[in-house]
Amino acid sequence: MYREKMSVCQKYYPNEPKEPVVVTDKVPGPKSVSELKKLGEVFDVRPSYFMADYENSIGNYIADVDGNLFLDLYAQISSIALGYNNPALIKAASSPEMIRSLVDRPASGNFPSAELHSQISKLLEYAPVGQDKVWSGVNGSDANELAFKAAFMYYKAKERNFSADFTEDELTSVMENKPPGAPKLAVLSFKRAFHGRLFATASVTCSKPIHKLDIPAFHWPHAEFPAYKYPLDKNEKYNRNEDIRCLENVEKIIKTWHMPVAALLIEPIQSEGGDNHASAFFLQSLRTLTLENNVVYIIDEVQTGVGATGKMWCHEHANIKPPPDLVTFSKKFQSAGYYFHDPEFIPSKPYRQFNTWCGDPSRMIIAGAIGDEITSNKLVEQCAAVGKFLFSKLEELQEMYPQYMQNLRGKNRGTFIAWDLDDEETRTQLLYKLKLNGCNVGGCAERSVRLRPSLTFDKKHADIFISALEKSLSQME
Amino acid sequence: MYREKMSVCQKYYPNEPKEPVVVTDKVPGPKSVSELKKLGEVFDVRPSYFMADYENSIGNYIADVDGNLFLDLYAQISSIALGYNNPALIKAASSPEMIRSLVDRPASGNFPSAELHSQISKLLEYAPVGQDKVWSGVNGSDANELAFKAAFMYYKAKERNFSADFTEDELTSVMENKPPGAPKLAVLSFKRAFHGRLFATASVTCSKPIHKLDIPAFHWPHAEFPAYKYPLDKNEKYNRNEDIRCLENVEKIIKTWHMPVAALLIEPIQSEGGDNHASAFFLQSLRTLTLENNVVYIIDEVQTGVGATGKMWCHEHANIKPPPDLVTFSKKFQSAGYYFHDPEFIPSKPYRQFNTWCGDPSRMIIAGAIGDEITSNKLVEQCAAVGKFLFSKLEELQEMYPQYMQNLRGKNRGTFIAWDLDDEETRTQLLYKLKLNGCNVGGCAERSVRLRPSLTFDKKHADIFISALEKSLSQME
Repeated sequence: MYREKMSVCQKYYPNEPKEPVVVTDKVPGPKSVSELKKLGEVFDVRPSYFMADYENSIGNYIADVDGNLFLDLYAQISSIALGYNNPALIKAASSPEMIRSLVDRPASGNFPSAELHSQISKLLEYAPVGQDKVWSGVNGSDANELAFKAAFMYYKAKERNFSADFTEDELTSVMENKPPGAPKLAVLSFKRAFHGRLFATASVTCSKPIHKLDIPAFHWPHAEFPAYKYPLDKNEKYNRNEDIRCLENVEKIIKTWHMPVAALLIEPIQSEGGDNHASAFFLQSLRTLTLENNVVYIIDEVQTGVGATGKMWCHEHANIKPPPDLVTFSKKFQSAGYYFHDPEFIPSKPYRQFNTWCGDPSRMIIAGAIGDEITSNKLVEQCAAVGKFLFSKLEELQEMYPQYMQNLRGKNRGTFIAWDLDDEETRTQLLYKLKLNGCNVGGCAERSVRLRPSLTFDKKHADIFISALEKSLSQME
Repeated sequence: MYREKMSVCQKYYPNEPKEPVVVTDKVPGPKSVSELKKLGEVFDVRPSYFMADYENSIGNYIADVDGNLFLDLYAQISSIALGYNNPALIKAASSPEMIRSLVDRPASGNFPSAELHSQISKLLEYAPVGQDKVWSGVNGSDANELAFKAAFMYYKAKERNFSADFTEDELTSVMENKPPGAPKLAVLSFKRAFHGRLFATASVTCSKPIHKLDIPAFHWPHAEFPAYKYPLDKNEKYNRNEDIRCLENVEKIIKTWHMPVAALLIEPIQSEGGDNHASAFFLQSLRTLTLENNVVYIIDEVQTGVGATGKMWCHEHANIKPPPDLVTFSKKFQSAGYYFHDPEFIPSKPYRQFNTWCGDPSRMIIAGAIGDEITSNKLVEQCAAVGKFLFSKLEELQEMYPQYMQNLRGKNRGTFIAWDLDDEETRTQLLYKLKLNGCNVGGCAERSVRLRPSLTFDKKHADIFISALEKSLSQME
């Protein structure tokens, strides 16, 4: 059965190369350097690693303009679900429905298309367990801010016993950006969290100062996020105490913050912030706490969602009961938005959760095609199996190179795997050596390596990566 | 020459119908009603006017699922530049470059594509006079919030004499969402303004309470926006005094608000808020005021941009010198973002203005195609000419029906035309009669009618609309 699943990548990409090709002795290579310089005249290229050639990228391999072909375990910051130039997605992208959605982009709230019902229903087929409604946005920050709006409106509606009427005082004060119409309410998030870079999302983000500096913020709180010891099975008591310490901190903030905490927002694995995992116990205890304290519970699955942890949605590992109130998504689904189940999250009146486009049908079409491929090819199950294999190989390497593979984590979380080095410098060194050895891999936080391959990454790719990593690690000394 | 321009619509849409077709006696018709009911199970259809059939929409006509075909002067809330199913856009949407941008959406900051330079350069070809740089976003709210970030970072950078270093106090306080790292700074906008519905944009929006209620806001100020008397040429003195009154109010707020005003944001014509025009004198005086008071000047061209006012960008009518600092766009360009000219608006370090996707190449491709068509077919000039013709016809109707056509405005502003009725009820009545007479027209604020046809709307369409309007007005009595 495992063998059969392995053929999915072959089916999509019969011409995928057998191994990486690195033809330059530096990355970026000379052509990348000169083209990035030219691009720098019109775009900020300071964060650019190389100039990609998407036409020649295929499956799990990303090409650059110098002719290098890297096995890609970063996948556009965790945003490519099925590999490059996937034939099923090309078919969806070439369909008349797609072309119409691009040239006649509808203002779906006012003039919905006859196709919108099936586009949204497709998104709902892949909703997290317990969620049966969705509202569409355009990217991860947008998904989270739309969810905050839903949470705040719901929180205030409950105060009004769901009466649809506003007081005269609310109607006038809101036009001056003052309470009660514009209430003082907070979203509680966690230290090291990353939820986006707009204004409300920058306020809940707490991973690095550079994301936030000089941007006015809402004075919202960040609670302690558990920092576990690894391996988990040898540190159960310590880690449970760590969960309890953080839960007490959450509860204290909810009870004492200088404005009511209307919502709590958490990534099941803090990704940008260092691949910090939250245990099932922690996530379930937050459900209990939020219910007790009248706080909306929002799970941010922007990076963890869509299969890479070995479940369609990462928080499903925790089997949270009752399910969280809102679950946000973007990245590997290309489309974005939030799932929910309680109809009372639909605002009391129209035009409160609204904008010109109300989502993006072209991206919903892609999301639907991604979901269909994942289901029909059992790609979540494959990812779980490949991840298990990959993790065991990494454990072997960890024994040989413990210094460069600290806190290996992500066991039984598909290919959503990470580890730490001593500091930023050694991490950057390892990532660079990996590139020269044919693998494009990303970092997170200051000193972590994170693996984020697509769902078509299979055992043969894991073998190639392990060889490249072993070689790179041996070159570190 | 005018005759020659008239053929553009014919060229695009040889099969465009000669006139609207209305086959139902109510709008929405029975099939729309039943399909909207079904869609309502998964989507908020309370704002929906009818269920559109984009496959059968063509040029200036929007079809619905009942077989009605309306002359469209609303154009997806002012977001369709060239009409429905435009062949040049279909070509762009079917290109291999487009398909790649949909199935391999790049994280352009880290892994830019070889095509990104030409995609951005295309956007720059159509930049407002005086602007030669652009940063990409995904919709109007996003464009404005990205511009605010640029403005705040610039404002603080100036305070530091453009040193790239942050103080220890800034680096720690920002992680707690407190000053000085997260500074108390304001964006000044105007009463009746509409700039979007996220958190910072909802704070600057001030058109209707329903857009803002229950959403926590930054305590930012809204200044008086001039309310002119029409026709302009008969009320020059009154209107100049009105400008001066509002400028004094702006200056007072800048000088006395409880936190520094870092940026000023204005629509050259407040669109959602009632098609309230700002004079060239007012817009120029704001430039002077912002320079004197160290305030970043941002023009929001999300609705007014891309040709519909008879210039590519509406604020070009005012010939503001020196040009505004940032100009935001979206809607009819499908792509979104902000234009700027001063390189010091590029943040001191990478990853400060950054996100996973850094814009959307698929939408840049469409924007480039729209720009090319506008230029090669002189559609801005055509829009100016058609607008002049349309306005003169509306003036004639105004003489016959002054009660239903108050404050007719938008003379010499292309087809960006509006007028008022007594109240919301009569406005809604007129819009409904217009639908039954074959024209899809939108309202704005409480009692205004706004015309927002595409740039392929020509004299023959104006004639059809005037007949339908005359008939509708006659039915009001």
